[in-house]
Amino acid sequence: MSKRDYLVKYEDLYKIAKEMFMGLGYSDEQASTVTECLVEADSRHKHSHGVAAMMTYVSHLRAGNLHLDAPAPTTVFETPVSLVLDGHSGVGYCIADYAVKKTIEKAKKTGICITTVRQANHYGFAAHWSEMMAKEGFIGMAMTNTVRCVCPTRSAERNLGTNPITVAFPTADEEPMFNLDMATCVMAHGKLVRSQVFAETGVIPREVIIDGNGNVVTDFKEALEILHHGDDRSECPDPHTGGLVPLGGVTETLSGHKGYGLAMLVELLTGGLAGGTPSKFIPLAHEGICFFFMAIDPALFGNPQEVKEHIKYIINEYRKTTALDPELPVIMPGDKSRAARAKALKEGIELSPEIVDILREVAKLTNKEKELEAVVHHE
Amino acid sequence: MSKRDYLVKYEDLYKIAKEMFMGLGYSDEQASTVTECLVEADSRHKHSHGVAAMMTYVSHLRAGNLHLDAPAPTTVFETPVSLVLDGHSGVGYCIADYAVKKTIEKAKKTGICITTVRQANHYGFAAHWSEMMAKEGFIGMAMTNTVRCVCPTRSAERNLGTNPITVAFPTADEEPMFNLDMATCVMAHGKLVRSQVFAETGVIPREVIIDGNGNVVTDFKEALEILHHGDDRSECPDPHTGGLVPLGGVTETLSGHKGYGLAMLVELLTGGLAGGTPSKFIPLAHEGICFFFMAIDPALFGNPQEVKEHIKYIINEYRKTTALDPELPVIMPGDKSRAARAKALKEGIELSPEIVDILREVAKLTNKEKELEAVVHHE
Repeated sequence: MSKRDYLVKYEDLYKIAKEMFMGLGYSDEQASTVTECLVEADSRHKHSHGVAAMMTYVSHLRAGNLHLDAPAPTTVFETPVSLVLDGHSGVGYCIADYAVKKTIEKAKKTGICITTVRQANHYGFAAHWSEMMAKEGFIGMAMTNTVRCVCPTRSAERNLGTNPITVAFPTADEEPMFNLDMATCVMAHGKLVRSQVFAETGVIPREVIIDGNGNVVTDFKEALEILHHGDDRSECPDPHTGGLVPLGGVTETLSGHKGYGLAMLVELLTGGLAGGTPSKFIPLAHEGICFFFMAIDPALFGNPQEVKEHIKYIINEYRKTTALDPELPVIMPGDKSRAARAKALKEGIELSPEIVDILREVAKLTNKEKELEAVVHHE
Repeated sequence: MSKRDYLVKYEDLYKIAKEMFMGLGYSDEQASTVTECLVEADSRHKHSHGVAAMMTYVSHLRAGNLHLDAPAPTTVFETPVSLVLDGHSGVGYCIADYAVKKTIEKAKKTGICITTVRQANHYGFAAHWSEMMAKEGFIGMAMTNTVRCVCPTRSAERNLGTNPITVAFPTADEEPMFNLDMATCVMAHGKLVRSQVFAETGVIPREVIIDGNGNVVTDFKEALEILHHGDDRSECPDPHTGGLVPLGGVTETLSGHKGYGLAMLVELLTGGLAGGTPSKFIPLAHEGICFFFMAIDPALFGNPQEVKEHIKYIINEYRKTTALDPELPVIMPGDKSRAARAKALKEGIELSPEIVDILREVAKLTNKEKELEAVVHHE
């Protein structure tokens, strides 16, 4: 952590953030669910999905785009192994929480369940949902389409979401030892927009975003302008607005078409199977986002304990891989996140001055300024 | 096609290739299944998985690594929505064919089925299997681990497979209009090894393979040496042998860890859920390869016709994307392959002189030289 950073105890951040959400009009239950997701994200150094998002929700509330009074999700269609829900444009985290709990409940009976959701909203830190399933003993998979910000291969039209895929495996150990959580573009929207390094240097030294002519953009300010272009409108952006680059890069040379293919796959599994909206038509306020959840019981493949032992065996075989640099060992998807969380629980969550400033703004709006200052401090 | 290339009618290539396989000792049924996969691959310009593979099978047969007399796959474990098979080191294509047919049969009853297979062998062109499910009206997913050839992020130890993922969707049209088929590395093993361009120029002008020190290899001969190093042994290769680069590149800068994460995901879904062998321990002859198949009925999410119409709607919305270069339109995964197949059915399959030379070698071994010359010709 940098010397500028603040430290706050996990439970303190949870308490104050929840109070602020309730001050903004969230119900006790809504505030609990949202706060848990955000604080969990901050504890794992995924600050792009942490409490800093509060200010975004304040704007959405002001614009009338966040519907705290939306009805609870309703069932559109159901079979013993599947469920289609309508989220009625409610709070994304709460819709996801409802959907994942239902998915687990159904998978406990049949061994497998796929749940798709239409008319949802941003669900934050995706690995939270796959891990929720893994902690109940299932292989958990979660996908979401998002606001349009990625360009298909061969185009500069920003019409795909960052469309993250997350999959967590339960193992013979208590905690999930594998939790892949990846946007299908080179760099996720939130990570780019909130990058401290890019903001400080003004430069993006990588192939992560293109302009309307398909050229790689290295100027951070220009990148932000591209990402925000057309956000005030609900229609599809003009062609050639530029946007994020799919995993694999701009061209097909290093297989950018594979990242594009994965993003399209997520469009079809989420919007496609939910009868919902593709990312192309999802506005900045995230109304219309669609989810895909799947829980798979290891008991479908034999004695569940043995299956989980075998998963652990394979993970451990790959953990033995010799690293090029002993200081940078070969790790599993989810390792960094789990280590960061363990440290945060012991030593406190690190928050940058920028994040604390956002919290201060929301604290002012909700009369929690004193309470906030009492819990955030430099080391 | 180049002027050097040969043309052969689909049905002629099928007939002669099947006869040659039978000449090598394959049963009528084995030869039919294998030949269909190979000729389908050639018809789609996926020559790395086409009839040129015959010579590899000849070597495996000679080395005693290809077991034509292996027993049919047996059931290790089964539930109404899942199946675990043991392939008994038989012919990979035939094991996959059996597994996919069983997956479809079971999914017809319950709407969903996951089948995993241990002790299988190379199943060729992966999209063949996802498409088989899509043609029966299911969303079809297929994955396989493979011979070790990819290095995890931060390592030069070649221990992951190319671990391709393929997913096909049925749509309201007859043919699957989306069929993603991607190795989780930048460039698949077969594509690299059989690249005519790299062979002619001697240079690989891309970040697709690293040496034992983690440096990108641009010399084609050196790349082949790296890929074949340790192939004569069944144990794990020495650390720092070098190998293929995961999708996203060597470092984490452009998210190479995402390609690595996807490759690990495939290890866990195939070997992990089949109680089988990880790629790390799979020798050149492919003995021990594991599969993962999943068929999902669109009827799990509502009226199946409406679900398929909605999938088509989303695909078509993305087909409207404005291309940077009108000569290079934005396409869907599977489009190139389908167009190539349609052309090949009408005009014949294009085969390079190198591929025809391989066929001639096998024809010599099986006394089919005259028959082969009668069907392959220049345009």
